[in-house]
Amino acid sequence: MRYCFGVDIGGTTVKIGLLQEDGTILDKWEIVSRTENEGEAILPDISEAVLKKMEERCIQKAEILGIGVGVPAPVTEDGVVNGSANLGWKYKEVKKELEGLTCLKVKAGNDANVAALGEMWKGGGEGEENLIMVTLGTGVGGGVIVNGKILTGAHGAGGEIGHICVNYSETDSCGCGNHGCLEQYASATGIVRLAKQKLQTFEKHTVLREKTLSAKEVFDAVKAGDEAAKEIAVQFGEYLGWGLANLAAVTDPAVIVLGGGVSKAGEILISFIEGPYREHAFFANKNVKFVLAKLGNDAGICGAAKLMMDDI
Amino acid sequence: MRYCFGVDIGGTTVKIGLLQEDGTILDKWEIVSRTENEGEAILPDISEAVLKKMEERCIQKAEILGIGVGVPAPVTEDGVVNGSANLGWKYKEVKKELEGLTCLKVKAGNDANVAALGEMWKGGGEGEENLIMVTLGTGVGGGVIVNGKILTGAHGAGGEIGHICVNYSETDSCGCGNHGCLEQYASATGIVRLAKQKLQTFEKHTVLREKTLSAKEVFDAVKAGDEAAKEIAVQFGEYLGWGLANLAAVTDPAVIVLGGGVSKAGEILISFIEGPYREHAFFANKNVKFVLAKLGNDAGICGAAKLMMDDI
Repeated sequence: MRYCFGVDIGGTTVKIGLLQEDGTILDKWEIVSRTENEGEAILPDISEAVLKKMEERCIQKAEILGIGVGVPAPVTEDGVVNGSANLGWKYKEVKKELEGLTCLKVKAGNDANVAALGEMWKGGGEGEENLIMVTLGTGVGGGVIVNGKILTGAHGAGGEIGHICVNYSETDSCGCGNHGCLEQYASATGIVRLAKQKLQTFEKHTVLREKTLSAKEVFDAVKAGDEAAKEIAVQFGEYLGWGLANLAAVTDPAVIVLGGGVSKAGEILISFIEGPYREHAFFANKNVKFVLAKLGNDAGICGAAKLMMDDI
Repeated sequence: MRYCFGVDIGGTTVKIGLLQEDGTILDKWEIVSRTENEGEAILPDISEAVLKKMEERCIQKAEILGIGVGVPAPVTEDGVVNGSANLGWKYKEVKKELEGLTCLKVKAGNDANVAALGEMWKGGGEGEENLIMVTLGTGVGGGVIVNGKILTGAHGAGGEIGHICVNYSETDSCGCGNHGCLEQYASATGIVRLAKQKLQTFEKHTVLREKTLSAKEVFDAVKAGDEAAKEIAVQFGEYLGWGLANLAAVTDPAVIVLGGGVSKAGEILISFIEGPYREHAFFANKNVKFVLAKLGNDAGICGAAKLMMDDI
């Protein structure tokens, strides 16, 4: 049996997993992401954690296939990051530096793309080789998997699903500076934005006025039959469904996996997205399956490990 | 030296090329596409043409790497077509049938995707491995190349660029049944549609009133300084530029190649697309190069040959 490390670097913590070749997670733990001084300690900390774990479990270097790493930034095919705001990194040769530190083989990719690969391997997209994963969190991230491989793109920025335009007449700005990005309607913050707008014009009673607005409160209210909440969910579903129909026309997936915090609302989420999707999708793409992500926080370490093993 | 056949099947003619491994076209010719009786003669005709050419040039089977084929329909990875309106085909196992007829190795792909591969290999995208080609003809077709390979998708329908939505409030229908597809604004017929709309409200003099409207007349008038024509071109560029910015956010190309009949307008076309593209593109994709296709009608046979050789 051989092993592999999957590493998911976030702005607050680094998740690390020790996996078997077959994807079984033998161990997982977190270390703090030390982002001060341009995040210079992050890779050395990961190296130390990995080497310590090998010692602890008496695993030899020859038994380790390598380390897969997910980074919150575009990552080129050769493992270079040109800046990550969340980590404080400027130009960083992730693969080269971590290989130097550990003497293990390293492969790095964008965290959202890597999570998509994880969901393909062991999660909601298991058994499929062509999928889109959309991560509905604070922002909207995502990954496109084509023939079992991440669509990385020329600058490592493939799969930036949150920044396709779904409303050409939007006047509010997205965090990226553009207007009408999917992220403005389908992220947790986007749903709150839609809710605030709705409450300004909605004249009947709604439980949402009594709550601190959040994506969770909105979908809880939908489940309780609240009318205003349903209208917000319909808007959310229209934007996301239509946006995904556009993506599907280009990438032709077999399945679309919905993940991230917002997806914890469950199957009801799909019910709002599927209708608009099937209405607007190109005929060849109408029968795409929608599924919820299954791996939760493990998608990153799992996909990172898979990314590395695919590179052997 | 070994050889390869590149075949580009169209609704009227089949273009066939005999190529060297290095992409040099040694010979090219056309045969009629016999689409009657559900197009049953098309593959046997191609087989006959190919075998005759080998006899004529005294080329042995061992010297032929195979036959690459572009088909005007979605084609799955294993060479199956589920209907092509242009050819009269219903379900057709292109690869299997043509291999049976010729005893040569066959690889088939969608014609627009195959043309994109041709432009990557020997045309406007030479030297790049990640590109989008958009073919502005009667419709809008296209292909996405990722790491040097066609993005085929789960149903062989990848790269259907013409059917992403670029106007969510459009009421006119696209040929596909949807509303607001890129094809409704950026194809030759789409440009004529925009021109007709413009002439209804444009009150000053324009040479376009004296012409039979066509995409060529519009761009000729733009070059002659006609104000109405320029406004039409600006609209065309807005829709296409914004649509391509959306595509780029997902596929992250290094270069975008513009082909098809409309692209014969030349560099001036790019001047109308680049501005809106760079305004709306996600930051990582802003510096994409725009180039014109170079291979013209040879893109299909060239790309088909490349498709086959990549499969060896």
